[in-house]
Amino acid sequence: MDLNRYSPNNLKRPSKGLINIHPIQRGGILTEEARKILLEWADGYSVCDVCLEGRVDLLRNPPVDELKQDVAEFLGMDTARFTAGARHAKFAVMSAFQRGTLVLDSLAHYTSYTSAELNDMRVFEVPNSGYPDFRVDPEMYAETFERVREETGSYPDLALLTHVDYRYGNLADAERVGKICEEYEVLFVLNTAYSSGVMEVNGKKLRTAFIVASGHKSWAATAPIGILATNYELSDRVFRTSKMRGDWSGRAFTKKELAVFGCSPVFGLPVMTLMASFPGVVERVKHWNEEIEKARWFVREMEKIEGVQLIGERPKNHTLMHFESPAFHSIAKKHRKRGYFLYHELKKRGVFGVQAGMTKNFKVNIYGLSWEDLDKVVSAFKDIAENYGVEVED
Amino acid sequence: MDLNRYSPNNLKRPSKGLINIHPIQRGGILTEEARKILLEWADGYSVCDVCLEGRVDLLRNPPVDELKQDVAEFLGMDTARFTAGARHAKFAVMSAFQRGTLVLDSLAHYTSYTSAELNDMRVFEVPNSGYPDFRVDPEMYAETFERVREETGSYPDLALLTHVDYRYGNLADAERVGKICEEYEVLFVLNTAYSSGVMEVNGKKLRTAFIVASGHKSWAATAPIGILATNYELSDRVFRTSKMRGDWSGRAFTKKELAVFGCSPVFGLPVMTLMASFPGVVERVKHWNEEIEKARWFVREMEKIEGVQLIGERPKNHTLMHFESPAFHSIAKKHRKRGYFLYHELKKRGVFGVQAGMTKNFKVNIYGLSWEDLDKVVSAFKDIAENYGVEVED
Repeated sequence: MDLNRYSPNNLKRPSKGLINIHPIQRGGILTEEARKILLEWADGYSVCDVCLEGRVDLLRNPPVDELKQDVAEFLGMDTARFTAGARHAKFAVMSAFQRGTLVLDSLAHYTSYTSAELNDMRVFEVPNSGYPDFRVDPEMYAETFERVREETGSYPDLALLTHVDYRYGNLADAERVGKICEEYEVLFVLNTAYSSGVMEVNGKKLRTAFIVASGHKSWAATAPIGILATNYELSDRVFRTSKMRGDWSGRAFTKKELAVFGCSPVFGLPVMTLMASFPGVVERVKHWNEEIEKARWFVREMEKIEGVQLIGERPKNHTLMHFESPAFHSIAKKHRKRGYFLYHELKKRGVFGVQAGMTKNFKVNIYGLSWEDLDKVVSAFKDIAENYGVEVED
Repeated sequence: MDLNRYSPNNLKRPSKGLINIHPIQRGGILTEEARKILLEWADGYSVCDVCLEGRVDLLRNPPVDELKQDVAEFLGMDTARFTAGARHAKFAVMSAFQRGTLVLDSLAHYTSYTSAELNDMRVFEVPNSGYPDFRVDPEMYAETFERVREETGSYPDLALLTHVDYRYGNLADAERVGKICEEYEVLFVLNTAYSSGVMEVNGKKLRTAFIVASGHKSWAATAPIGILATNYELSDRVFRTSKMRGDWSGRAFTKKELAVFGCSPVFGLPVMTLMASFPGVVERVKHWNEEIEKARWFVREMEKIEGVQLIGERPKNHTLMHFESPAFHSIAKKHRKRGYFLYHELKKRGVFGVQAGMTKNFKVNIYGLSWEDLDKVVSAFKDIAENYGVEVED
């Protein structure tokens, strides 16, 4: 066993000191406030010092109970729980509909599918429009509901929409899907892993039954922490408590909520960093328009490079984006580093996060970058292009 | 919404600056090495910077794949995964035995019961000897297996033993239970939430099919992180991958492991702090005998206080312990702070972690305390006793 490889000196982050445009990293960068409390709350179960009720969401010191209610209000919902990531939140919802039927958009994150599979749900996909914009037409939810009824005899139990998908960064029309779900009386699950926490999301307006969110993706928290918000009518069903009784001891655990493993495993830093970042998050969602402005400027600049083309909806409504770049791909074919050349050339220029090996297509996320850093990123791409003889418009 | 309560100035840890003997806190205190890497890896999904395979346990930079194998070897098992706490590890095992039968000791943690309930398992308890030592007799496993066969027609699918229970800190005879499970061909699940990481645990010797561990309880890691270690024969069953295929898109996720939500939500600090602490953990388990020596000394000193009595097995084989203290209880009845007096009196003397409100019984954990701090803790209890006229032997 070579334990030396785990020495702190050998555990440097690959992106250290670089501008990180990795698609999943931007919304999870801690606020200064979260950084300030790191050392204080880093040990194991730190928040459980004065736990009296045996559930992290009921803690008053630190104020997790208050945070839970404030987060629910912020999302336009009645109540919420923290979970071990958005994936755990989706599992929790679906565990209350085991062996039922789920409709989801075909751009959904893999954890939407695997949560359904783990709960033996039957899954029906809502098509997307395919290349090049990959849009999900809300009306197709109605059509898919009808198809489900034909095949199973009844409408689905749940309809999940990925608010912003991880492949193209398209912003789906959640309001329209919400209205359709309401008409069909199908419970609407909105996965906001890339939206709430960076942009405003209001469940009342969108008619959601459940909102799933990701703290480490979009609420400036350490991993793992997700949010599952719901309404009072559904709360008892999804946050159902234990009914078991020990056959010899008579022990019972009537306060423990099954779907979050009794007491949700977010004690310690995940919930504390989400808490410390929360005031900053409440503020930052008001400035989403500036982020969109930057995203659209970024697309215009990137498309000045010969052959580079945005894939997904136009204009951009999110900071996560997907480009095609046949010119970089042609370079890769002849380059001694092959597809890795782009990764290395970017790194040389202080930019990190385009997946190593990718040149034909790549994804980036520019959320929260200053105009200055954004300009550095654009200049890096343009400079690489020019160095390899690819044309760049003025 | 009063956001000011989330300001870093208002988020001080209640135990700050005090000797913390809270039963769940001692084994999760970070090592210096883990503290060193905190800032570097604190942002959201930090470890995913150079993820190519879509699974955190396959990462090579940082070396999570290597860590996974080293942790498995350290536990005397073939392979392992990291999970969102021991509770998630138990859920993962039981999700592969849905609607089956589970035998567990009647001292088991509530998450052993609720994981079974979430997976629709039928649960049978192994009795314990009751007051005052609450021992679990390994032979009762055989008896319970027979009872299960009488009631269900077959032996149970799984037998879970809580290696060290959270109520009395009793160390169960895992080797004997392992042998009985082997004889009956029942898969043996050992919950080592309070043992592995502080003391040596070897699955080969104990004949375990699954070892569950808690990183934030006993491996000096930030929460939440658990470990699920198993053998090659069982690995495919418990870490089964997705078989689903999108009905419209044809999308498949054949690398994703269902029971850990596809890719286990421990990315970022949980796995990095466990990694940085691992060399220290490998070293510290060798010094467990000194911890037992301290624990036994502590019991002797505490029992010099009139009426104070250790509950649970004697002599102590673990640092977590449970005392009865009728004298403190009598004081509480007349005290204006009622049961809270002990908490406050200890806090005044720099000692934290006895649950506020408890006097008749209380639990502490002295793991990793220096002799000097241990002496301070003993002196605090004795001083309180004497101040209230309770006799203390010399």
